[in-house]
Amino acid sequence: MKKVAIFGAGRIGRIHAANLATLPGVRLQFVCDPMAEAAAELADRHGATVATPEAVFGDSSIDVVAIASSTDTHSDLINRAAAAGKHIFCEKPVDMSVPRAQACAAAVQAAGVACMIGFQRRFDPTFNEARQRLDRGDIGDPEMLVITSRDPGAPPPEYIKGSGGIFRDMLIHDFDVFRWILCADGDEAQWLSATGSVLTDPAITALGDMDSTAVTIRTRKGRLCQINTSRRAAYGYDQRFEVLGSKGMLQCGNHTPSEVRQWDASGVHGDKPEHFFLQRYQSAYRLEIAHFFECLQTGAPFRTGIADGVAAQMLAEAAALSCKTGQPVTL
Amino acid sequence: MKKVAIFGAGRIGRIHAANLATLPGVRLQFVCDPMAEAAAELADRHGATVATPEAVFGDSSIDVVAIASSTDTHSDLINRAAAAGKHIFCEKPVDMSVPRAQACAAAVQAAGVACMIGFQRRFDPTFNEARQRLDRGDIGDPEMLVITSRDPGAPPPEYIKGSGGIFRDMLIHDFDVFRWILCADGDEAQWLSATGSVLTDPAITALGDMDSTAVTIRTRKGRLCQINTSRRAAYGYDQRFEVLGSKGMLQCGNHTPSEVRQWDASGVHGDKPEHFFLQRYQSAYRLEIAHFFECLQTGAPFRTGIADGVAAQMLAEAAALSCKTGQPVTL
Amino acid sequence: MKKVAIFGAGRIGRIHAANLATLPGVRLQFVCDPMAEAAAELADRHGATVATPEAVFGDSSIDVVAIASSTDTHSDLINRAAAAGKHIFCEKPVDMSVPRAQACAAAVQAAGVACMIGFQRRFDPTFNEARQRLDRGDIGDPEMLVITSRDPGAPPPEYIKGSGGIFRDMLIHDFDVFRWILCADGDEAQWLSATGSVLTDPAITALGDMDSTAVTIRTRKGRLCQINTSRRAAYGYDQRFEVLGSKGMLQCGNHTPSEVRQWDASGVHGDKPEHFFLQRYQSAYRLEIAHFFECLQTGAPFRTGIADGVAAQMLAEAAALSCKTGQPVTL
Amino acid sequence: MKKVAIFGAGRIGRIHAANLATLPGVRLQFVCDPMAEAAAELADRHGATVATPEAVFGDSSIDVVAIASSTDTHSDLINRAAAAGKHIFCEKPVDMSVPRAQACAAAVQAAGVACMIGFQRRFDPTFNEARQRLDRGDIGDPEMLVITSRDPGAPPPEYIKGSGGIFRDMLIHDFDVFRWILCADGDEAQWLSATGSVLTDPAITALGDMDSTAVTIRTRKGRLCQINTSRRAAYGYDQRFEVLGSKGMLQCGNHTPSEVRQWDASGVHGDKPEHFFLQRYQSAYRLEIAHFFECLQTGAPFRTGIADGVAAQMLAEAAALSCKTGQPVTL
Repeated sequence: MKKVAIFGAGRIGRIHAANLATLPGVRLQFVCDPMAEAAAELADRHGATVATPEAVFGDSSIDVVAIASSTDTHSDLINRAAAAGKHIFCEKPVDMSVPRAQACAAAVQAAGVACMIGFQRRFDPTFNEARQRLDRGDIGDPEMLVITSRDPGAPPPEYIKGSGGIFRDMLIHDFDVFRWILCADGDEAQWLSATGSVLTDPAITALGDMDSTAVTIRTRKGRLCQINTSRRAAYGYDQRFEVLGSKGMLQCGNHTPSEVRQWDASGVHGDKPEHFFLQRYQSAYRLEIAHFFECLQTGAPFRTGIADGVAAQMLAEAAALSCKTGQPVTL
Repeated sequence: MKKVAIFGAGRIGRIHAANLATLPGVRLQFVCDPMAEAAAELADRHGATVATPEAVFGDSSIDVVAIASSTDTHSDLINRAAAAGKHIFCEKPVDMSVPRAQACAAAVQAAGVACMIGFQRRFDPTFNEARQRLDRGDIGDPEMLVITSRDPGAPPPEYIKGSGGIFRDMLIHDFDVFRWILCADGDEAQWLSATGSVLTDPAITALGDMDSTAVTIRTRKGRLCQINTSRRAAYGYDQRFEVLGSKGMLQCGNHTPSEVRQWDASGVHGDKPEHFFLQRYQSAYRLEIAHFFECLQTGAPFRTGIADGVAAQMLAEAAALSCKTGQPVTL
Repeated sequence: MKKVAIFGAGRIGRIHAANLATLPGVRLQFVCDPMAEAAAELADRHGATVATPEAVFGDSSIDVVAIASSTDTHSDLINRAAAAGKHIFCEKPVDMSVPRAQACAAAVQAAGVACMIGFQRRFDPTFNEARQRLDRGDIGDPEMLVITSRDPGAPPPEYIKGSGGIFRDMLIHDFDVFRWILCADGDEAQWLSATGSVLTDPAITALGDMDSTAVTIRTRKGRLCQINTSRRAAYGYDQRFEVLGSKGMLQCGNHTPSEVRQWDASGVHGDKPEHFFLQRYQSAYRLEIAHFFECLQTGAPFRTGIADGVAAQMLAEAAALSCKTGQPVTL
Repeated sequence: MKKVAIFGAGRIGRIHAANLATLPGVRLQFVCDPMAEAAAELADRHGATVATPEAVFGDSSIDVVAIASSTDTHSDLINRAAAAGKHIFCEKPVDMSVPRAQACAAAVQAAGVACMIGFQRRFDPTFNEARQRLDRGDIGDPEMLVITSRDPGAPPPEYIKGSGGIFRDMLIHDFDVFRWILCADGDEAQWLSATGSVLTDPAITALGDMDSTAVTIRTRKGRLCQINTSRRAAYGYDQRFEVLGSKGMLQCGNHTPSEVRQWDASGVHGDKPEHFFLQRYQSAYRLEIAHFFECLQTGAPFRTGIADGVAAQMLAEAAALSCKTGQPVTL
């Protein structure tokens, strides 16, 4: 029986807690959240106890901490968990600062604990099916990747203010997908060019951020990746990628609530994509946490280790710099 | 807190038990199954107790019985549950004999207990979305319905032998879909013609059954329904229907494991449908049991009452007769 | 150089004339139509001459007559063309009366002229691709066929009055598709059941016709075919079929004016099908007439001989009878 | 009656000649080609005469010259046609040298003749439907454009050698699509970044060219465009674009030879795209030349004037420069 403490009783924390509850051999013991009411409610729902971080780190029966608290707490909690010898599941990002993220990675390694970063897209059934086909060589060697990543609407200004900007907040997932899909053989980004605009809401300009971006990456082996993102797609959450290989192409489409097509005088109509990430990645969240505990059990490496978290963060830094200077960045 | 006893610890029983476990205010108390080991394992997984039917019906704290045992036990358990004043969720069919099914319906009504029949297709997200659009009038008045219903492969001969034949075993779901989609305004089947063949396996002829059928139904209002079924589709479980209305058409497609399209030298390739009913109707099973308890809570009528179970059974009888005589049946 | 006389300068006659004009080694010599103005206009457009039937049949330099005149003239023109030793391309149907159609077939055979009937669906790129895959065995042996055949709207009452009824007028194409797809190995219809209703316009009842039909055919080999038709589909001209075989299924979809998908707040929207038969079968008409002349050249048999015309007519008769009596017909 | 002389009896010349033949009021008079046999064959097929350029330009009865000869002859023929007062239809590009292309544009303007450049994609039914929806405001203001443009295979080395490189030879069409779709309101490219690789055939490196490119353009209004191209897609000719607007997205898909879907044990399979540009743009070529003569008739401006040809050429120059230097280009 693995005993777990969860940090964060918000939206994501509640999802992880519910998924934990379905896993055999796993028990949610503690819930930590500065919002006492949220913590109590989540603990109550799953027969767990509210606790302070100190209590968690001081309790030697706790095997695992799951970090789903606010971004600025991640690195501190990783460091303390590592020091306490606990295995770690942590939501992205490791930390907004690359040096601090690298320090976390070092601390984790020194402590010899396992640490997985929650890049849930790698567990999406569609995206993961593409990865498996690449592994089988179904389309030969990958050459080009086009990622389309659009949110249904921009988050509120106060969120954007503290988000670190669109590259660190939103594209970090896309940078991870790039590495996962194009760099599985050890290839890495060599040249990156990013640009962007504010097209959906002038308030975003005032915050020093952008809402629409276009990033191009060329790898050492000459593979090409283009990422296009927008904070606002009128038709909803658009999460697709296409990878061209020497023998074919894999196209990963959106998921929809139903498979109804309505044929009428104005055309043939299908569903919009699943509303947002909680809907689209519902299966991914479930498979992700199951993978974490399965790897703990078997000793297999995580699909998304802390090094992946740091690497995606570095690409986000490079993109932000390129976009600011108008010049490509060599990595 | 609703306390539940489940009859049947087989494949379907286990699904219902797992779904029950996620419902707030519901507790699985007893598991009954003549296979002691299966019963014990299921009870253990959900913190329930193995019990005999007598213990269940004699325990006044039990509110609900969920019947997922073999078909030949359904009517007896319904009758005993009704007599004991317990609400009933029962897998289809009510009973292979229409008179016995009708007697169950009478017993349920006399006892004043609630009884829902598990036609899970009415809870499938795609099929149910179509029903809701019909309710909203999105395609006007329904006129024609084409149902395609094909299994990935025929069940083993011993199953077919005791199945009551393809119309009672397999098409009963399609007859329920027909009534659900075309008869929501009180319309009913008036004329039915069925034919069939053995095309996939001569062994089915020896069993006096068929593997391929074509049924046509005309309703009192003149609406038309065509159902085509096969026990064997090389590409998997095919569950679709199309309803033509005065203002358009609704087309309900299959569900797939992923949204990957592979483009290569031989074409553009998508996934086969979800493997079989446990995969395709995974969401439906979850939504079905939640609906049952929600209706118990609110007093709202079930989407599939015992009368629906009897009505579908009667259409199956008529189809079997028509197929045997080669003549249409007037209802 | 094949010299051609065309009968009928209406909609279909003009299409055939334009397609003839693109064929090397073919020359349109005469246009016959009781409507002098239409005849003159068509002749003028293609450098042909207006002529009487007598002139056509008396001119030994004419090799081919193309019959696209009104249905009631077909059998007479076929007989006269056969007597004059001219090869014949004739629009469907051969004749509304089966005995007269059979007499035409006999006359054609006796005269030793070639005669092709214009079942253009056999030349549709999508439908024909399916036929070729069946020939290659891509889905094994065909078992079931589901044909969906719906017009965008009912023709005017005066047309319906003289149409011979929906089975002879509209479903004759579907009966030909049935024979083409399911009976290529010499199998034939053995049992047919048809029913129908008036659901779109009560005026059709007054004319003794129907607008919505459901036909089932079982062949000698036990193959099953279901045909559903409607005179009115709000979303346009719906021409699809699906054939299930022992190793898979072929699904023939509609054609669309463009491949644009519009994603917006109300869903994902594609084009309606091509408007009506002139648009959907534009390529088919072109390929059909080219096939006719190619077969004349090579001596290969036509894809749709006069015997096919008679056979489809007989199925239409059987369906009309079954629908009237409410009883199946054994063929 | 417009009398036309065509330069070039090759693949494209023959297409234009055949399409000319279907236009009322248009007559192909002369065919010019240094390959005497090709010229004679094409002239013969359409009842035209073989002529020298001198004869064409000296014949005052010729209204129009259609230039489909080799690229290096375009500017000279445009200049001579303009001087002779003849209207011009010219295949892309105007000239490989931007100054020479600009000189042609000036000559055309000075002469007051009409000149259209054959960017056939603007006449593709799918692409043009998207343009019309943008005009109607169906997806609001355009913001981002993603163009996917891939050939089924690289041309032979000798072709590549004289092609001017992938940006001038292949992407020139994509640059025109960019301007057509994102710049219809007078917006223009402001910033362009291009990179590329050789991934399909090392022989292309030896020729100083690339086979895979990624281009990003930002317009003055901040709109973003990403273009990805490859000389080799194993699945065939891939010609798609997606435009995101403030109210939705338009997705332009490939065209296919048929609408057959095959369902079998290995999945659900659709057709590959139409083989190459002659198949995909078959309708576009027909509509393009019809548009040319219609505009001549009505005086309406061409959809693709010579200024569009020069503008696309300038973007190709900028992309080639950016790719060579690794730095973005400001326009």
